[in-house]
Amino acid sequence: MLKFIKKSSKKVGLPPGTPIHIGERKIEKARITIIDYAEAQFQECEAKKVEECFPFKDKPTVTWINIDGIHQVEIIEKIGKLFDLHPLLLEDIVNTGQRPKMEDFGDYIFIVLKMLHYDEKDKEVKAEQVSLILASNFVISFQESEGDVFNPIRERIKSGKGRIRKMGADYLAYSLMDAIVDSYFIILEKLGEEIEDTEGELVTNPTSETLQALHNLKREMIFLRKSVWPLREVVSVLERVESALINKTTLIYLRDVYDHTIRVIDTIETFRDMLSGMLDIYLSSISNRMNAVMKVLTIIATIFIPLTFIAGIYGMNFKFMPELEWHWGYPAALLVMVIIGVLMLIYFKRSEWL
Amino acid sequence: MLKFIKKSSKKVGLPPGTPIHIGERKIEKARITIIDYAEAQFQECEAKKVEECFPFKDKPTVTWINIDGIHQVEIIEKIGKLFDLHPLLLEDIVNTGQRPKMEDFGDYIFIVLKMLHYDEKDKEVKAEQVSLILASNFVISFQESEGDVFNPIRERIKSGKGRIRKMGADYLAYSLMDAIVDSYFIILEKLGEEIEDTEGELVTNPTSETLQALHNLKREMIFLRKSVWPLREVVSVLERVESALINKTTLIYLRDVYDHTIRVIDTIETFRDMLSGMLDIYLSSISNRMNAVMKVLTIIATIFIPLTFIAGIYGMNFKFMPELEWHWGYPAALLVMVIIGVLMLIYFKRSEWL
Amino acid sequence: MLKFIKKSSKKVGLPPGTPIHIGERKIEKARITIIDYAEAQFQECEAKKVEECFPFKDKPTVTWINIDGIHQVEIIEKIGKLFDLHPLLLEDIVNTGQRPKMEDFGDYIFIVLKMLHYDEKDKEVKAEQVSLILASNFVISFQESEGDVFNPIRERIKSGKGRIRKMGADYLAYSLMDAIVDSYFIILEKLGEEIEDTEGELVTNPTSETLQALHNLKREMIFLRKSVWPLREVVSVLERVESALINKTTLIYLRDVYDHTIRVIDTIETFRDMLSGMLDIYLSSISNRMNAVMKVLTIIATIFIPLTFIAGIYGMNFKFMPELEWHWGYPAALLVMVIIGVLMLIYFKRSEWL
Amino acid sequence: MLKFIKKSSKKVGLPPGTPIHIGERKIEKARITIIDYAEAQFQECEAKKVEECFPFKDKPTVTWINIDGIHQVEIIEKIGKLFDLHPLLLEDIVNTGQRPKMEDFGDYIFIVLKMLHYDEKDKEVKAEQVSLILASNFVISFQESEGDVFNPIRERIKSGKGRIRKMGADYLAYSLMDAIVDSYFIILEKLGEEIEDTEGELVTNPTSETLQALHNLKREMIFLRKSVWPLREVVSVLERVESALINKTTLIYLRDVYDHTIRVIDTIETFRDMLSGMLDIYLSSISNRMNAVMKVLTIIATIFIPLTFIAGIYGMNFKFMPELEWHWGYPAALLVMVIIGVLMLIYFKRSEWL
Amino acid sequence: MLKFIKKSSKKVGLPPGTPIHIGERKIEKARITIIDYAEAQFQECEAKKVEECFPFKDKPTVTWINIDGIHQVEIIEKIGKLFDLHPLLLEDIVNTGQRPKMEDFGDYIFIVLKMLHYDEKDKEVKAEQVSLILASNFVISFQESEGDVFNPIRERIKSGKGRIRKMGADYLAYSLMDAIVDSYFIILEKLGEEIEDTEGELVTNPTSETLQALHNLKREMIFLRKSVWPLREVVSVLERVESALINKTTLIYLRDVYDHTIRVIDTIETFRDMLSGMLDIYLSSISNRMNAVMKVLTIIATIFIPLTFIAGIYGMNFKFMPELEWHWGYPAALLVMVIIGVLMLIYFKRSEWL
Repeated sequence: MLKFIKKSSKKVGLPPGTPIHIGERKIEKARITIIDYAEAQFQECEAKKVEECFPFKDKPTVTWINIDGIHQVEIIEKIGKLFDLHPLLLEDIVNTGQRPKMEDFGDYIFIVLKMLHYDEKDKEVKAEQVSLILASNFVISFQESEGDVFNPIRERIKSGKGRIRKMGADYLAYSLMDAIVDSYFIILEKLGEEIEDTEGELVTNPTSETLQALHNLKREMIFLRKSVWPLREVVSVLERVESALINKTTLIYLRDVYDHTIRVIDTIETFRDMLSGMLDIYLSSISNRMNAVMKVLTIIATIFIPLTFIAGIYGMNFKFMPELEWHWGYPAALLVMVIIGVLMLIYFKRSEWL
Repeated sequence: MLKFIKKSSKKVGLPPGTPIHIGERKIEKARITIIDYAEAQFQECEAKKVEECFPFKDKPTVTWINIDGIHQVEIIEKIGKLFDLHPLLLEDIVNTGQRPKMEDFGDYIFIVLKMLHYDEKDKEVKAEQVSLILASNFVISFQESEGDVFNPIRERIKSGKGRIRKMGADYLAYSLMDAIVDSYFIILEKLGEEIEDTEGELVTNPTSETLQALHNLKREMIFLRKSVWPLREVVSVLERVESALINKTTLIYLRDVYDHTIRVIDTIETFRDMLSGMLDIYLSSISNRMNAVMKVLTIIATIFIPLTFIAGIYGMNFKFMPELEWHWGYPAALLVMVIIGVLMLIYFKRSEWL
Repeated sequence: MLKFIKKSSKKVGLPPGTPIHIGERKIEKARITIIDYAEAQFQECEAKKVEECFPFKDKPTVTWINIDGIHQVEIIEKIGKLFDLHPLLLEDIVNTGQRPKMEDFGDYIFIVLKMLHYDEKDKEVKAEQVSLILASNFVISFQESEGDVFNPIRERIKSGKGRIRKMGADYLAYSLMDAIVDSYFIILEKLGEEIEDTEGELVTNPTSETLQALHNLKREMIFLRKSVWPLREVVSVLERVESALINKTTLIYLRDVYDHTIRVIDTIETFRDMLSGMLDIYLSSISNRMNAVMKVLTIIATIFIPLTFIAGIYGMNFKFMPELEWHWGYPAALLVMVIIGVLMLIYFKRSEWL
Repeated sequence: MLKFIKKSSKKVGLPPGTPIHIGERKIEKARITIIDYAEAQFQECEAKKVEECFPFKDKPTVTWINIDGIHQVEIIEKIGKLFDLHPLLLEDIVNTGQRPKMEDFGDYIFIVLKMLHYDEKDKEVKAEQVSLILASNFVISFQESEGDVFNPIRERIKSGKGRIRKMGADYLAYSLMDAIVDSYFIILEKLGEEIEDTEGELVTNPTSETLQALHNLKREMIFLRKSVWPLREVVSVLERVESALINKTTLIYLRDVYDHTIRVIDTIETFRDMLSGMLDIYLSSISNRMNAVMKVLTIIATIFIPLTFIAGIYGMNFKFMPELEWHWGYPAALLVMVIIGVLMLIYFKRSEWL
Repeated sequence: MLKFIKKSSKKVGLPPGTPIHIGERKIEKARITIIDYAEAQFQECEAKKVEECFPFKDKPTVTWINIDGIHQVEIIEKIGKLFDLHPLLLEDIVNTGQRPKMEDFGDYIFIVLKMLHYDEKDKEVKAEQVSLILASNFVISFQESEGDVFNPIRERIKSGKGRIRKMGADYLAYSLMDAIVDSYFIILEKLGEEIEDTEGELVTNPTSETLQALHNLKREMIFLRKSVWPLREVVSVLERVESALINKTTLIYLRDVYDHTIRVIDTIETFRDMLSGMLDIYLSSISNRMNAVMKVLTIIATIFIPLTFIAGIYGMNFKFMPELEWHWGYPAALLVMVIIGVLMLIYFKRSEWL
């Protein structure tokens, strides 16, 4: 359940803007890495103290400060003070129960996203909150733990390949968002395969495990939906926001992210549709099988109950039962039984029960 | 049912603007408390008479008048007269069947909210209506009973911690709304836990109590939704209203409340989705179990009915039944029965019924 | 069915604007009452002829002409001619199959509403169409039969209590609408109680009468919805229409009616949600009970069928059945039967069937 | 299926604007009738050749050209050439698979509608496509076959009654649309009656024919919906279009048609709601009846299986069965059986199965 | 599953704008054909090298470059360089997981569509992605494999029939889109026939194959919907886009495509409605048949179980059973059995079970 609702109750009664970490602690110690670059320049370092980030604040080069681990609230608070960030924003960064959202604070834009990965062990989708702060010449990103989704971007900056070194902080923020959205496709493929497997089972041999699998997939879809739907709004607003922080040339890239988001949502909806269709099929299959079971019972009972009755009659001990004395009584009784049985079978054949 | 619809019929035929208390009387006697503060000043008192509130009306300091208990309509009417409030507004304050709403009367803004708490004894969510009147330098709040949700705010004002003493009446109104919305998260966590428990039962051992629990949770969701959905509109309008009563700096805080409201609604919708998925699972489980029961019956009946028939045949009293005379007749009959039984079992094995 | 669709086919082929009465005739003879008032003046009379209304047309005082009974089309036509009303409007007044609607004809505003009452005998909600014409200084109201919903307003005008004598024709029209909307709450309470009763039955003892009751409640909800939903639009348009006929001071009252309408709609939707939840519970209960019935059958059959088979074996008449000769054969057979029975019971206990 | 989708595949690969008749041929030979009128003038004739229509093109009087039968594509093409109509429009006229739509071509407005009638023999709703071309002084209407829906309008023009002779071509077009929409009410009444009948059956004696009837009604609703829903948009756009072709005075009549369309749609939705409620009831009834059947079986089996077992015991042929020798053995056995039977009945009474 | 989600994971980590082919390789080698025409001029050739396309870039005539096969990414890249296309666009062309979309890049418009065809062998709808680039005087189209949908257009250009040679590149792009949308109708007819067949089966003899067929049709509908829904938006935006690339005269043709798209969507929705209605019928039929089976069982069991019990009684071996000694004992017992049987049958007749 923690997946669907975070223990926000810890915060009740505190003044707004009090940063309280809500969520799981995923790594031991927070880690701050700084990448500073311009078209012809590149510098990468790990900060021991938060204060080391400060000199980059007003440098004309693009600076990317990445914080892994948000449970050390004092670090977040110091960053907030150094970069002059609104307290409500800091509160949101450390509360992992946010929905994806985007807020324009004028000097900087604040973006919250969900990074998703499929946990093969627990067979479920897990989410990690990523917050981005985009200012004119720096991007600060906050992650719950060290992830590898951003590594290719680091590589690209380092190697100077592609457009990234030539563009500003907005393009960097876009690249981070793009990397996150792209990673959703992997989740969707995984879930798509599971849906396919479950559908196969449904056709060949539906059991109550199939039902459980369907239920789990539905839950994952609810979770995915909750994590991705608001993103559409976020990117769409980013595209339309009239902020000096976002260059025109970057807009076309944001449109591309928007497009990907729509495709993700589209696929989630398609999967939901398919899953609910599969549940119908499951229910129908159960009913069908019940029918089959009942038919077997009915056929057997309907044939043998009357026959047993006849046998019962001639098992009575009345003194005067003339049939019992007949020489052909026994074969005649057997014959009558066979005839009744055959008639029953013909009837069932006719009714298409056999 | 009182929870879903209040006895508004009492009011039928009365002229509009007649304040009639509709709802339960929750405390004995209404209680008026006044808190008056400025950045460097703080005063708290309890009013014995309504008239004691009047001097605060035009004081430049921020005044918070809180009335616990709205069943004493004459108090509400006096307040209305003293502060020159519209009669329709007074009518709304004492009628606890309102939906959350916001109305801009020019000189003051009227806000109706629902305060929710989870009643552990009755295992259901209970609502209390809170009305706020926000004017340029005072806030009047009306509650049905004394609650502890506003206590942390009182503490903050008293202690002078945080921003609150430096800000105006709009920030106070925001703080009250924020406190109420924050308290929703506690309800959601409680319900989330119950949903999780019920889901657990569903998997291990679904009974008709599980069904009842599902039904109750669904009802609570309907109730929650009814109480919280309109709030979204309320806060959104507050944010966009162009009123001199709300300062620009407060807007960002209202946006935060809006955000929280959206998260609450989002979670309610997620819970609803999950509950309806759980009902499907419940129904499927029942069908599955019925199938299992039917299979047992069918297997037993299908094996023994033919055998009993054979036994019946040799229980007949015909004079001439040669088999009865055979020395190996009895063992042969038993053997035939065993063979038939084994064949049946093999058939069931093949059909995957066993 | 007449409740859901009126015999509009009578009108097919007639030129537009031909007034044809469609609906039930509810009273014998139409009755015209006139109330004329100003702040310090009050006059009430019953018109024998339609022409008696004419002098009030241009009087500066506010005039309320109420016509009970719309089946006498000639009266409606005369009114139309006297007050210069559009023929399409007259057609709508006498056709009781209208949806609530509002049309601005410039000099006057035409409003159609549904007055609802709960028929205790037929246990269903019945509707009556009310049409209002609001001009600058008069209101004409058309009802299908004499109703008592407007009586409190008459009383208020007569007694001069409240605001009504001081306000214009728009306030009178508002008062009529308000009276109608207020009366919806009584219906909702009635239906709420019935839903509660039905829910109680559902928990204690669901029968096919409960199903029928659910179905009837659902139908009533469909009917209510059809009657009330469009009202939202009507009031909302009235509020926003820029007509000289509606004063600014009246707008706040219209907002109040709008608010009530929303609450009515909200409650209807809540009831619908609850009813559909109840149907799910009903279906699940039936399945649960079927399960219980099947279990009893299965337990009894599964225990006794094998035992009867054993009895059948020793009822066979083979010459050589050594067990029959044993002295302890009979007690041994009984013992075996008891053991089998007990084993079966243990098995059922284990499977949690008992 | 032809009802739901027309064989549009005939057209694939042809250049746009190629008129190909798609649909059934409903009459033998197309028929062109011309009515030309002004306030004081009336002329009616049947055209043998298409060219006879031409002189009316620029006459100041209002001309109504009606073509029954659209399968003779060459006629449509000639009309198109004479009146200078866009080829895409001609293509639409002869393709009966259109949805209702409205297109403004500047000099003329093109409207497609569906004329519906209830086929008593096939017990289904059938549709016929009607296309209207409204120009400043003429209206051309295209029907698939000769229908009688327009006859009252012809009569009204001929007799000069009502407004029609005084108004322009736009009023004529409105009259035709109004006649079509009015005819929908007849269909709705017919279907309403059938729904009522089916509902009656549902309560008294639901069979699989009832299910079939429900299914057919649902299909008809889907068909009706498909035919009428787009009309709402059509009329609404017509009302708002700023075309010189439509006079202000006609707008109020269009609003009336809009109103009727809304009522038709409203009723269709209500019927759909009712039908889906009825299906739920049907399913519940089946379950209820299955329950009843199972109870009978269970009661009979549960009472007699144990009794038969006891009888079986005393039918065993063991040498030493002391009870068999007792004088009161037989009555005692009977008594035991009666006691067991009565206990079972009491149990079923207690469980409310009887 | 590949049908619903493409392996987009290949792309994860790559910089945006990297063209990677995602999808099946459908033909061996890409093929480039060029058609260049003006009103009085026509030239058709097949390009061996991509560079051969370049001279047509700035020719005043209309040029249509068609590329069959998009798996040869280097060709797409060269085209991109020659015609100065945005890298994100190239990425989209080779990734067949796009939804239909339209993007205006100023100098050119980029359109993605889905070409559908019904695979008779696999009995499912298959999709192929078609991308169009519309510039002022050329159109570039990308297909996954050689298709015959565009052949009639080639023919029309060659023969000079119709409007196409007189119009610009926008009309050519429209023609391609129109050809694709028209081809949807064939799919719909095919699916319509299958729905009809399945519905027939449903009425006459529903089996679990019918269920499977329903499920498959539902899946196809989900797939179709996913492929066609976004097209509505695409065409609608194209119609409204204020681009110099699209002439006014072409707009009316786009409106026609829009209209067709709406009809396709409409039909898909109708089919979905019908399929979900059919599933309900299927479930009800199963329940009905189960009922029938249970009735047979119950009737047989209820009649014979009591009779067998009576036979069992007189099969007991008590010494003193006076009835056994009576001369008419046996016939009397038989008579009692017949009476009981007949009473049972009458009871079943009364209960309408027979």
